Amino acid sequence: MADIFLRGAIEEAKRGLSEGGIPIGSVLVCDNQIIGRGHNQRIQKGSVIHHGEMNCLENAGRQKADVYRQCTIYTTLSPCPMCTGAILLYRIPSVVIGENVTFKGAEDLLRDSGVNVDVVQDPECIQIMRAFIAANPGLWNEDIGV
Amino acid sequence: MADIFLRGAIEEAKRGLSEGGIPIGSVLVCDNQIIGRGHNQRIQKGSVIHHGEMNCLENAGRQKADVYRQCTIYTTLSPCPMCTGAILLYRIPSVVIGENVTFKGAEDLLRDSGVNVDVVQDPECIQIMRAFIAANPGLWNEDIGV
Repeated sequence: MADIFLRGAIEEAKRGLSEGGIPIGSVLVCDNQIIGRGHNQRIQKGSVIHHGEMNCLENAGRQKADVYRQCTIYTTLSPCPMCTGAILLYRIPSVVIGENVTFKGAEDLLRDSGVNVDVVQDPECIQIMRAFIAANPGLWNEDIGV
Repeated sequence: MADIFLRGAIEEAKRGLSEGGIPIGSVLVCDNQIIGRGHNQRIQKGSVIHHGEMNCLENAGRQKADVYRQCTIYTTLSPCPMCTGAILLYRIPSVVIGENVTFKGAEDLLRDSGVNVDVVQDPECIQIMRAFIAANPGLWNEDIGV
């Protein structure tokens, strides 16, 4: 059973799926509270920048630097280079990743930059992405620039 | 005199400034045509993800992978880690940077990843950012996560 915050990210992924979107979700946690949540918006907004983590950060709004420094960002899938870059820009010190079986992003860059990375390999996260990719390979490739 | 595409990015930066925003602009060029343009939207949209390059990519819309592979992105300022990550995600092979005197982003990561990086050191780009940072140090620090 995923922890409560990863569960929040999974709920976001499922919300995306129910909207016809790519099922990747994220929550931003500070001081044991969710201060932002979001999910991939490629289909819903026709967006190329609203990946799950990006949409979560955008929804969290303009936070002070010292808030980001106390945050953990939860994401159902290993962060791509763009989302990794956003985490590094705002110096978020900790990332919990639902899974990196279906896609491995720029985790090494996170670790090399001193970010604490925890990969859970949550079975539900893996199942959601496996099913989506199998049914929508073109969309999925578009989302990761392939 | 900046080339026509860098001029387009500078026009975007000035548009941002005229809206009360952070003056960083960008254009995306494919086949000698501008296919997207944008500018930083931190103030205008209350956005933490719409940096100049990100707003430009968003405005260009959903492009096919092989379009991005033929693009050059022009930006008035050295790309931060987030914008660098977006360039790497979509495998844009070439970046023209107006200046890196007032801020140096993740150019080394771009170069190490095989991206062609051209830093112009355009006097107008430098002047615009110097004036903005001097007048708005807090806003500027917020934009780069400091």
